[in-house]
Amino acid sequence: MLSKSVIKYIQSLQQKKFRDEHKVFVAEGTKVVGDLIKHNAFQLQAVYCLSSFYFKYKEMLPEDQVHLINEQELEKIAHLHTPNEVVAIFYQCSVQQVKEISGSITLLLDDIRDPGNLGTIIRTADWFGIKNIVCSKSCVEMYNPKVVQSTMASLGNVNILYTNLEEWIKQHPNIPLYAATLYGESLNEKTAVKEALLLIGNESKGISSSLIPLVHHPVMIKGFGNAESLNAAIAAGILIYSFQQRLI
Amino acid sequence: MLSKSVIKYIQSLQQKKFRDEHKVFVAEGTKVVGDLIKHNAFQLQAVYCLSSFYFKYKEMLPEDQVHLINEQELEKIAHLHTPNEVVAIFYQCSVQQVKEISGSITLLLDDIRDPGNLGTIIRTADWFGIKNIVCSKSCVEMYNPKVVQSTMASLGNVNILYTNLEEWIKQHPNIPLYAATLYGESLNEKTAVKEALLLIGNESKGISSSLIPLVHHPVMIKGFGNAESLNAAIAAGILIYSFQQRLI
Repeated sequence: MLSKSVIKYIQSLQQKKFRDEHKVFVAEGTKVVGDLIKHNAFQLQAVYCLSSFYFKYKEMLPEDQVHLINEQELEKIAHLHTPNEVVAIFYQCSVQQVKEISGSITLLLDDIRDPGNLGTIIRTADWFGIKNIVCSKSCVEMYNPKVVQSTMASLGNVNILYTNLEEWIKQHPNIPLYAATLYGESLNEKTAVKEALLLIGNESKGISSSLIPLVHHPVMIKGFGNAESLNAAIAAGILIYSFQQRLI
Repeated sequence: MLSKSVIKYIQSLQQKKFRDEHKVFVAEGTKVVGDLIKHNAFQLQAVYCLSSFYFKYKEMLPEDQVHLINEQELEKIAHLHTPNEVVAIFYQCSVQQVKEISGSITLLLDDIRDPGNLGTIIRTADWFGIKNIVCSKSCVEMYNPKVVQSTMASLGNVNILYTNLEEWIKQHPNIPLYAATLYGESLNEKTAVKEALLLIGNESKGISSSLIPLVHHPVMIKGFGNAESLNAAIAAGILIYSFQQRLI
């Protein structure tokens, strides 16, 4: 039986200020929670689940952190509308850092505001083996529930740093910086690269004006139809795919 | 002043059965509504807007279909949380058809359930100049408000047909059918094509088993990290981009 204070605590974690205060985040749904526990990237605080989830994952669940609940209780603490079995609380990473930038592809995100976009970009980066993502401080928080959900448990596989992006770029002047823009060289030019920084800008405004002078290669994903722009996550996916092929 | 019956009518259009009954759909937000009116692909039934929207677009707005409302009224009929100026109702296309399949790339969508994914795929197809999309009947409806929103007004630029996908494929046996799968030839193989059908499967189940025997070329977007799969819209984006380059 869930106490009122536990229900209130879990519900409060939908807000960033309480996530920050307690240094935790919430994940939901069988697949995402199951995978996050399996990957073991974040320390578990508590799992609230139906017995159906418990019997599937009990080998991996620390007994003292599991709370069996019923469907009515789950409904009170869950936010997903789809059939659901579990809500889990994990501790946030205590250290935020990126590492081994040289000789690899690093993703730079400037002011990505849509949680679904950020989550999908993290998942895509993970798929293509990108280890490091540097986010401007204005990007949506990586522990936002919608981000967590759309990463599909890739959150723990990628190093993510929130920082002053302009200063960070200036500290890495020797790695070629390519940015997705609506002008510049065509992405079809397949020059080989041994390392790269790939910059994706805001959903409606593109790359911040302060960052434009720092870009070595503006790159255009050439369009042929009537759409005015590509979705930011789609642009990121195509850019990463293209550079992943060029990497030597 | 909006009457109760008008408010009730607009609210009812959030449900598919009422959209079907009245053969209309709803769009929201300055950019999407403005672009849909500009593209003129769907006949307008009515626009409910603040004066700020009216003064921006009045040249294009048929006087007798515009209803100026205040912010309180907008809040009652709108579903977007972001700053908003307008809700518009358009008539659905009366004819659903695809045309000129030969010599071009056609997208086939099998059981895409997430409205954001479908909308993003339509927008991406439009960006790359794809004119035809064939959807299985189990795909989410193209007039779902979240689909409309995420197409960013590309909805009117692409022919979209909902049909029995298996039968449709069997009627087009001579166009090579490529499908995004987790096996098969690597997408990196850049054989030129003069036309192609590109098949994207369901978000969690992939391509339906009844369609697999019809696929000529299963194609894999090779992963290098730990993610189990790519988001369906990202896979579609990369596949379309790659084939758009191969087209001769």
